Amino acid sequence: MLKDKGLVAELISSLRCLPGVGPKSAQRMAFHLLQQDRQIAKQLAQSLNNAAEQVGFCERCRTLTEHPLCSVCNNPARDPSQLCIVESPADVMTIDQATGFKGLYFVLHGRLSPLDGIGPQELQLDLLDQRLQSGEINEMILATNTTVEGEATAYYIREMAENRQVRSTRIAHGVPLGGELDYVDSSTLSHAFSGRQDM
Amino acid sequence: MLKDKGLVAELISSLRCLPGVGPKSAQRMAFHLLQQDRQIAKQLAQSLNNAAEQVGFCERCRTLTEHPLCSVCNNPARDPSQLCIVESPADVMTIDQATGFKGLYFVLHGRLSPLDGIGPQELQLDLLDQRLQSGEINEMILATNTTVEGEATAYYIREMAENRQVRSTRIAHGVPLGGELDYVDSSTLSHAFSGRQDM
Repeated sequence: MLKDKGLVAELISSLRCLPGVGPKSAQRMAFHLLQQDRQIAKQLAQSLNNAAEQVGFCERCRTLTEHPLCSVCNNPARDPSQLCIVESPADVMTIDQATGFKGLYFVLHGRLSPLDGIGPQELQLDLLDQRLQSGEINEMILATNTTVEGEATAYYIREMAENRQVRSTRIAHGVPLGGELDYVDSSTLSHAFSGRQDM
Repeated sequence: MLKDKGLVAELISSLRCLPGVGPKSAQRMAFHLLQQDRQIAKQLAQSLNNAAEQVGFCERCRTLTEHPLCSVCNNPARDPSQLCIVESPADVMTIDQATGFKGLYFVLHGRLSPLDGIGPQELQLDLLDQRLQSGEINEMILATNTTVEGEATAYYIREMAENRQVRSTRIAHGVPLGGELDYVDSSTLSHAFSGRQDM
């Protein structure tokens, strides 16, 4: 794009492919990298190349990994009777870091969205069905996003689990911890109200 | 660092070397790059490598460039009688984009800071003195930052220019455009007040 403007401008324009990085941040990043030890920039380039070339999908849960099986699926200490369904590989990392969940995952890489041509085949739900059929899963935890498509996907997968006599649960939705009621949007509050529990 | 955790974790940890990127943004960037067209990640790696290996300093103004002379110094349309002194290569780009300045630059790569062992030698002020001595400069514009060290550096360089009978100017300091007086810090306001001009 800006190739004729030199390597610094080219680096700035390449850095803009990163999410959340505008022209000003890209400029700051480029100058920071070039004014520091250059080894750091080279190390980043190396990591990018390695990851771009070698990272593929886990054969079992479809998260990102450079091995046939990811570190979660490959860990004998994890409980195979609990299966958590998420929309993206980032969700796997987020849930693993935030919760004490010790089961396995299945990554949809998207959500059902007929208007965009994303149906059960695109999410490879047949792969999920095989796992439900295997009989080793006692509980399937649906952790898709709480968007319209995420909810629809959760309902669709719940039906699949029902057909295989697997219990399905949905992560709780409601008022975030530390949140003040005044700042919570009305649909969340209404959901939290109707989903009240004995205490 | 996290090499044993796999290439994705390694990429996340490498991305954290970028300024303003914390663990959460690094994670988001890594997953974004790996879920997009991989060619984009490779292109970024290529740009990083090219820049890290080939970019050096302009022989004349010391900004970052992969050529002996930067595109500003090499441009015959620029006016060599005006010289703008800045602290970093990023400032060159910022001033060139924001103002209509058509003169040349000199990059200090820092500021005088005796406590940190940064004196005139470290800023290569002898190189600047040669240019002042050459007689082609009519006006030297001091655009160092308005920190204590930046101001001290500006005064030091002004003395140098005085010795060579070169006129020096300082960029204006005062209330930012669009700023409300109520939100401006007191030292800026006091500076703006004492520096008032006829209108």
